[in-house]
This record gives sequence, C-alpha cells and structure tokens, in this order.
Amino acid sequence: MSVPRPNPLLSDRNVDFQLYEVLDTAALCALPAFQEHSRDTFDLLLDSTRRFARDVLAPTYRPMDATPPTFEHGRVRVHPAMRSLYADMVDLGLLTATRPPDVGGQQLPLTVNAASSVYLMAANLSAYGYLGLTLGAAHLLEAFGTPFLREQFMARMYRGEWTGTMALTEPQAGSSLADVKTRATPAPDGTFRLQGSKIFISGGDQDFTDNIVHLTLARIEGAEGGTRGVSLFAVPARRPEGDRFVPNDVQVAGVIHKIGWRGLPSLVLNFGESGDCHGWLVGQPGRGLACMFQMMNEARIMVGLNGVATASVAYQEALAYARERPQGRPTGDRDTARAQTPIIEHADVRRMLLRQKAIVEGGLALLLATSTQADLAHHAPDEAARQRAHLLLDLLTPIAKTFPAEKGFESNALALQIHGGYGYSSEYLPEAWLRDQKLNSIHEGTTGIQGLDLLGRKAVAGGGAALQALDEEVRATTARARAAGVEPAWSDALEDVLQQATALTLELGARGMAGEVEAMLRHSADFLELFSVVAVAWRWLAQAAAAKEALARDAPASTGDAPFYEGKLAAAQYWFAVEVPRVPLLVHLCRTGEDSYSRMHPDGF
Amino acid sequence: MSVPRPNPLLSDRNVDFQLYEVLDTAALCALPAFQEHSRDTFDLLLDSTRRFARDVLAPTYRPMDATPPTFEHGRVRVHPAMRSLYADMVDLGLLTATRPPDVGGQQLPLTVNAASSVYLMAANLSAYGYLGLTLGAAHLLEAFGTPFLREQFMARMYRGEWTGTMALTEPQAGSSLADVKTRATPAPDGTFRLQGSKIFISGGDQDFTDNIVHLTLARIEGAEGGTRGVSLFAVPARRPEGDRFVPNDVQVAGVIHKIGWRGLPSLVLNFGESGDCHGWLVGQPGRGLACMFQMMNEARIMVGLNGVATASVAYQEALAYARERPQGRPTGDRDTARAQTPIIEHADVRRMLLRQKAIVEGGLALLLATSTQADLAHHAPDEAARQRAHLLLDLLTPIAKTFPAEKGFESNALALQIHGGYGYSSEYLPEAWLRDQKLNSIHEGTTGIQGLDLLGRKAVAGGGAALQALDEEVRATTARARAAGVEPAWSDALEDVLQQATALTLELGARGMAGEVEAMLRHSADFLELFSVVAVAWRWLAQAAAAKEALARDAPASTGDAPFYEGKLAAAQYWFAVEVPRVPLLVHLCRTGEDSYSRMHPDGF
Repeated sequence: MSVPRPNPLLSDRNVDFQLYEVLDTAALCALPAFQEHSRDTFDLLLDSTRRFARDVLAPTYRPMDATPPTFEHGRVRVHPAMRSLYADMVDLGLLTATRPPDVGGQQLPLTVNAASSVYLMAANLSAYGYLGLTLGAAHLLEAFGTPFLREQFMARMYRGEWTGTMALTEPQAGSSLADVKTRATPAPDGTFRLQGSKIFISGGDQDFTDNIVHLTLARIEGAEGGTRGVSLFAVPARRPEGDRFVPNDVQVAGVIHKIGWRGLPSLVLNFGESGDCHGWLVGQPGRGLACMFQMMNEARIMVGLNGVATASVAYQEALAYARERPQGRPTGDRDTARAQTPIIEHADVRRMLLRQKAIVEGGLALLLATSTQADLAHHAPDEAARQRAHLLLDLLTPIAKTFPAEKGFESNALALQIHGGYGYSSEYLPEAWLRDQKLNSIHEGTTGIQGLDLLGRKAVAGGGAALQALDEEVRATTARARAAGVEPAWSDALEDVLQQATALTLELGARGMAGEVEAMLRHSADFLELFSVVAVAWRWLAQAAAAKEALARDAPASTGDAPFYEGKLAAAQYWFAVEVPRVPLLVHLCRTGEDSYSRMHPDGF
Repeated sequence: MSVPRPNPLLSDRNVDFQLYEVLDTAALCALPAFQEHSRDTFDLLLDSTRRFARDVLAPTYRPMDATPPTFEHGRVRVHPAMRSLYADMVDLGLLTATRPPDVGGQQLPLTVNAASSVYLMAANLSAYGYLGLTLGAAHLLEAFGTPFLREQFMARMYRGEWTGTMALTEPQAGSSLADVKTRATPAPDGTFRLQGSKIFISGGDQDFTDNIVHLTLARIEGAEGGTRGVSLFAVPARRPEGDRFVPNDVQVAGVIHKIGWRGLPSLVLNFGESGDCHGWLVGQPGRGLACMFQMMNEARIMVGLNGVATASVAYQEALAYARERPQGRPTGDRDTARAQTPIIEHADVRRMLLRQKAIVEGGLALLLATSTQADLAHHAPDEAARQRAHLLLDLLTPIAKTFPAEKGFESNALALQIHGGYGYSSEYLPEAWLRDQKLNSIHEGTTGIQGLDLLGRKAVAGGGAALQALDEEVRATTARARAAGVEPAWSDALEDVLQQATALTLELGARGMAGEVEAMLRHSADFLELFSVVAVAWRWLAQAAAAKEALARDAPASTGDAPFYEGKLAAAQYWFAVEVPRVPLLVHLCRTGEDSYSRMHPDGF
C-alpha cells in the first residue's frame, strides 16, 4: 500500500546548494592536498554515489530490515544481498575516497565525502555500516599501525577483501571505558594473547568477506587501572600463520536483537576462550584510548551523518505523501462535493514538514561545515590554521553528532505522523527509519556523554580559543548575511545568543576551576541543547545569505529556482522565530544551576 | 537479559496521593449518584485491578506483542491468552464499573475507574483495548439505542458475551469524516443494508467471543453530503434471525501490520459485499457524528490514559534499571579500584528520570482532574454546575488526550535511552512501549485535529465561560498552594501564564470572528502545546500543595514518606523552571501569527 515512487533520499538541489553556494567547497582545491581535484571530480563522486544509492542500495533496505542476520553453528549469516553490495561499494572507491594516494586513495575532501556518503546512509544504513566500520578500523591502522599491520591488515581492508570493527564496549563497562577488563598477555613472538568479552560489536561477524579485523581495547597484564592502562590491539577473526590463515579463537557468543539497523548484526564476542587469540598491539601501550579518540571526531561525524540521512529519507517520503494524499478541505470549506485537497495544503502538515526541513537541512549544513573544519585541520597550509580548525572541529563534533540524533528522532516521528494511520503500519517505511534513528543517541557516546564532552572539555578548550574561533566564523556569516540583505534581526539575534553562550561558558568554566565541578556540569544536557540551537542558527543564517545572494544575482524567478530559495528563507525564519528564542531560557537554567534533579533523593522518584 | 523484577506499572503511592490527597475523590460520594460508595469501595476496585494487572495481565504483554493475530480463511485468530483474559476482566466488573445499576453496573465515578484502568493499560494495552472498545460501543447503544438494540446488543456486550468496535474511518477519508462514503439503504423490515469499506478497525475481528457489534458511520441513500448526512448504525458480525444468528456479510478484507498494540488486530472491513449486511439505525438519521461525538470526550480521555500508562510502565522500568545498573563513577572520581556506581547517581540520568516523572505524574494528575469534571458533568446536583463541568471537560479533553501522547512519546524514548545499548534491543521492553505509544498521537483524532478542536471550538466555547471556569479552578489551586507555603513564585507564574493564554484566546477568537480564520488557527499546534504546559503546571502546583500540606501535617519524615513528598516538590520545581517559561514564547508565535510555514510554497520544501 505504500506510495509507489522513487524516494530521492536527499534533495540533490539542496546538497549542491550546501556545497557550492553556502560553502565554497571548490575552494578547498587550493589546498596542496586537494590540488588534483576540482568541482568536476567532486561531482563525479556525488553522481556515482547518488545513482548507486538510489538504484542499487535503496531497494535492498526493506528486505534487509525484514530478514536480519541469522546465527547458527557459531557463525553469522547476513543478508545475501550484502556480498554484491559490499563489492559494489568497494568498486565505487568509497572505502578510500578520502585516503591519501599511498594507501590507494583519491584524497578527496571529507566535506565532499560526507555529502556523498549521506546518500548511501539514507538508502541503507546497515549496508553502509559495514563500510564505515571498516574505514574506521583501517584508518586506525593507517595512523598507528606497524608496517606489518598496514600491509597485512589495513591494505586488505582498504581493498575491500576484509572488513573491520571497533571492539570497545564490555558488558560490565558500557560507556565507562576506564573499566575495560579484557586482558592482553605478552607472548614470546611479540604479539599478545587476548582474553575477554565484548558486547554490541557491530559487524562483528559476516559471511561476505574472508576475514574481519577487530580493533580491540584491552589491558596489558600488569597495566595500571583506569583509562591509562588501556591499549589498542588488532585482532583478526582469522590470523596469518605462515602462508595461510587459521581461526584466531574469536567466538560469537550471541546476537543482540536490535530494533533497527537490522541488516548489520550487533554481537557479543568472546576473545580467547581457548587461550589462543592473538592480538597485535596498535600504537603505544596504554595509549589505546588516545589512539581511539584520535578517530573519534570522524566516528561521531559519521553518526551525525547517519542521523541526517535517516531524517532526510523520511522527510522526503513524508513530503511526497503530503503532496499526493487527499484529505479534508481548506479551513471553512465544507463542500464535500468538491475533491479533497492534498494534505500539504493544511497549515499543521506544513508546520510538520517545515520543522523536518529545518532539522534535516540545518543538520546537513552543520555536518558539512564541521567536515570542512576537519579538512582544514588536516590540510590547511600553516600550523596555526590547522590548530584553529582542530579546535573548531572538536567544538562542533559533539553538536554535529547529537543534534541530528535527537532532533532527527523528532523529525522521523513527524514523518510517521504525517502518514496518519498508515504511518503506524510496517507496510510503510517511516516506522523503520524511526527505529533506525534511535540508535544514534546511544552509540559512539550517548547524548549525555556528548553534553559532558562539550561543556567539560571542548567548549573550554584552548582557554577560550575554540569559542573565539566560532565567534569569528559566526561574525563572518553575519557580515555576509547583512551584506546580502537578510533580515537584520536574525544576525543580531545570532550574535546575541552566541555572546550569551560564550559568557555562560566562561562562568561555568570558572565554577569548574573553583572546584564546583558538579554544579558546572549539572545542566550539560541543556548546554548541549543551547549550543545546538546556536550552531544550527549559524548554518541557517548562512543558507539564508546564500539564498538571498542567489535571488539577487540570478533572477532565478525565471529559472524556476525561486521557490527553492524562498523555501530556504522560510526555514531560516522558522528557526529564528521558534528555536533561537529558547536559548536564553536554557542559558538561565545552566547559569542558575536549577537543582530539581540534582537534589532529588533516589527514593523520591 | 532483562532485569528480573516485577514492574509495578504505576506507583500505588502516587495513585493514592492523586485520588485522596491532591483530589478529594471520596467527596464525590456526597453526590446522589455515588451515595452507595465510599473510599472503601473505590479501594476494592483499585486493589483487585492492581493485582490482576500485575499478576495476570502484565505477563501476557510480551507474548502478545511477539505473536500478533493471524488472518486465515477470512477469520482473525488472536492470541489464545485473550479468551481467559477477557473473561477475567469481565468477571472483575470492569465493563460496567461506571455504568448505572439499570444496565448492571456499579456506577463508580469515572475518576476512580480512570485510576484503576490505567493499571490495566500499563500491563497490556492491547488486552485492555478490546474492553475499552466494547465499552464505547455498548455505551453508545445505552445512550442512543432502541430498546431492541439495548436488549439484544448492548446487554450482551456489557455481559461480556460479545465485543464491540467503532467503525468510522474509510480508506479515502481518514480524518475527514465528512467524506464518509459507506451507504445504508432502507429495507422493508426497518433495518438498513450497508455497503462500504472501513479501515483501521481495532478489534474488528477476534475468536474469543461469539459476536462483534460494529458501531458504523454510513450515509443513508439520498442523504445530504458532508457531516450532516452521516448516520450511525449497529452492524453485528452475526445478526439475529429468528432464534439463531447468521453471518451478516461483514468481511475481513485485510490486516494492518501495526508496529505496536500488536495484540489487538487493526483491520480493513468490507460491509455488504454480497448485499446482505444488515444495520440497525442508532439515534436519528443524520445525527451519526453528533452521537459519536457525545462519546468522544470519553474516548479521548481513554487515549490520554493509554498514553500515561505506557509512559508510566516504561518510567518504572527505567527507574529500576537506573537503581541497579552500575556504570561509571561520580564526577571527578577516577579510582577504578572502587566499584562503579548505579547510574541513578549521574545527574543526566536523574534529569531523564525526573522529566519522565514530571510527564507521567503530571499527565495522570491532569487525566484524573479531567475525569472528575466528567463525573460532575454527569452527576452534579444542579444544572449550572453540570454545565460548568461540561465546559471544563470539553476544554481539558484535547489537552488530556494529546499531552500524554506527545510528551509520553518523549518520555518513552528517555526510558529507552536510560537502558543504553540494551534499550535498543528487543530483549528489553522499553522499545515495545515506545512503539505502543506512537499510536496515541494518531488515533481518536490526530494531534493536529486536537489543536484545531481546542482553539477553534473548546477554548472559545461559551463566550469565554470555559476559560473563566478554568481560571476559577486555577485560582482555587493557587490559593491552596499559597496557604500551604508552596514557593509563591510558582503560583504567581501560573496565574500569569494562564492570564496570557486567556488574553491570547480572546485575541485569536476575535480574529476568527473577523473572518481571519486561517490566521487564527495557524499556530493551533503551539496553542495546544502552551495550554498543555499551563494545565500540567496547574496539576503540579496542586500536587506541590498537597505535598506541603502532608509534610506539615504528618511529620512524615518519621514515617519514611518524606522522600515521596520531597520528590513531588522537586518535580513541581522542574516543571516551573523548565516548562512554564516556554509559554510566553509560544504565546508570541500564536499572537504574531509567525508565517514561515503558512507562506511556504509547496514547491519550496
């Protein structure tokens, strides 16, 4: 009964607008790292990714959701479609698009890769998941692996012959990585023997490649407690022994029945049940978390993109449904002899659509701006510029991870709501995307952890330098918006709320320095929320500026593009009218340290 | 892997507090209709319901969710547990608890019945659903049926021999009942022949009673278009013919695969495919919607209770999990040699729990206050008091329906979030309750429709008399709170936001009278939202007053009840600190008629 039409996943017009009108992504080609590239090579990637996502990947989403992996005789079988899907993704160069030529990559900007991968995620989050995890594992070995590990493990992952995972979480430790208990005992051959149990290992087994490398946190025998005793190991499912590969004593102990991402198994893995699990140290002993965290921004940006993608595909579905579904009549019209109108004519349906648009497109804009800082952090020509970009990247990452997860979930629920009773049926897809979205507030650091990270570390980083850099970026945007003739009250409001947020950060930082850490961090969730509103307002103002410039420059009314730009201005208006005024309320909660829940006795609930 | 403990579904302590300390439910016994009753008879119902809900009903929830009804050879088979569950619920007197003695009932107050039924809903929403639907159908016949219908159909439903449904929605009409197309042709015997198709008919078939009566909207041949041409019919699945029952040409045409409420089938029903579907007119021709709407408050309050129940059971689960699950350490403590602390010690977990508490207990308080107005609307001794209560009931109903649905969904998502990765697994129950909750913003009038109902009808009803009555109720509460020594700023804030909401309503009403209906209704969603915040603030202030009174009166510190009352004060503080300050922002949106989505061109999305 679902509406038969191809879902575009994302609006191409919007993605191009973000890359080339809001941002000047082509300008990245001036950096030495990207000098081989041009908008043409960017568009080549985008075009092939869009086509593959729509034509090949999207049709596999529903079958993979309906037929999750099975677990029999100790092995996981995933959906049979994965074998060719994975090979196709590898052939498209998606594993190495951003990697340097010395590992076989094209060294495209992360910004462009983010825009292209969001199509893949929107089409089939689980299928992309294998790729994303492999990329993360291979990248860790690229950064910290010995030549042996790079040649034997990394290269095979980048070539698509093996996949990779991140094996961090343990049943008793969850988010508390300081409590990791998996042990690593040095062996005479320089490797280690691992023993322990990991949980929620996504892609921890599959049957479409020959091998899987688990990048695993463990504690070397005798290491100190806490985070500084944790090291990183590469643990293959099958290990090289002479010229062949033998089972490496990694057992699948159970499958978690996830409510979404059902094409990607989440497993309990036992390492070394028979005492024969070999691991190769990656990086320095005791530096496991440091290595892992060096990749953390990347992983969290990927989660943010997952969130945007999942909200986007549902928004596109709801939009098409709202345009097609006749129901009711305009306010005051009771003539049932006339045909019913499409529900997009109803104000409240439009409200729900515009809220989704504001979240989806505001979220994508934030992710792309964050990715640009990642490109600059790696490749800006001078050290000061790289450092500044790194501070901004660090500051924006917890927001870019959380905003699409939290508001995306709300957006996905609105897409379901627009479908009415049909939305509550599993014959329509919005409910599936709603399930998928919920994981994004949990994995790669829960929303609670992102709030602590933003307030306790990132916002106060560099003695205020991070916020100073954000302030400069925002002022560049308000200057552009004012010059373009965007409603001046929006620029004023953005500068005002950023100033409030900055002053608040200094106050809270001082409280922390004075030892009142609990009081400082009490409202970290509200702090994250308010910075999200501000950051997305910044990106909506940039979009409004680009839209105004286009309306003035191109006289697009004649080209039919005016509604697109007017829609951008309406969404920006929505954000400044509905969301930005909430910031002072949230600032007030953080500043006063409103104590309802902190003073609540556990027996009082 | 789920935590093995009995979930209490709701806090008994809280329910008793709501009934007997916040409200004075026992005082209802002064009304002639309830003079046979006392707190003792109320508690009898509550005790038996609680016990049944926990011991019998709750254990069937997971199996019924896992094994939804099947559809074969034209018949629906529901979970086999339903046969005895339904009989048990009938034996407990739940069908007729609130009905008068002349139909076999106990005539208990709706307030008490609401408090008791919320346990059943929290235990197993689907199982209760059959009962709730039957009650609604039987009640319609009690109010509008001929003696024949009361004796033949109603009495059997109240005795639990048959079940009932509401058959309103049609595939092409959804929320637009003016577009109902099912036809009813008069037959010589005084009945009608029905022909048409209905969709989303909950409980539209089952195999645990002999018959089902569908209360069906249809248009009598030749009737006018629109809502005034719609009549109500009783259409049994099997009809009486002489002294036996024969099939009545009602076919199950399909099963909707719902994502929640999976124990209760939602069906497509075809009436009269063979031209032999007999229907009995209920009430006057053309008055079908009027009859239906006379029961609508009741049905919508039931949805509100569903929402509270579903949020409550998940809140209780999250609370128990948070008390048991060790994870991490207090801020600043990095000594991993010490045991991890239960996550309830973390501020952000407490924030999520307190928000759930505020929603669940604030929602229940609102539902019970609304039910009390329903009791008074039916049974207050004088006409003026009944009319006043009816205005209040009408005013509060869209809020009492929507608040638990919308904020309950958020609350359910928080319960899942507290469970971390485990919450994302179907081996834990929070995800199931999250699925269940989502229906409540859709059925019995979507949230969008409730907003239009509140602003377009209920808030402006009686020329301001409804709001006047609410104002009197609120002032009685603020007087009580001030006398009890509750933080005076809360009473001031409540009076202030109610005054703002009232002034706004008058303004918008005037705009409507001036013909600017679109502008009046544009922000009906925000209007509903702000009235929800105000109404729940009213109920939190009442709870704070009762808590303060108890703390002063009983010296409960010595009885161990102090944390309960202190918890009430903390939750009230939370609501006034976090939610109430949002009201002026929402008022501003409604007043200025912020036009981002109304001016949005459909092509601009």
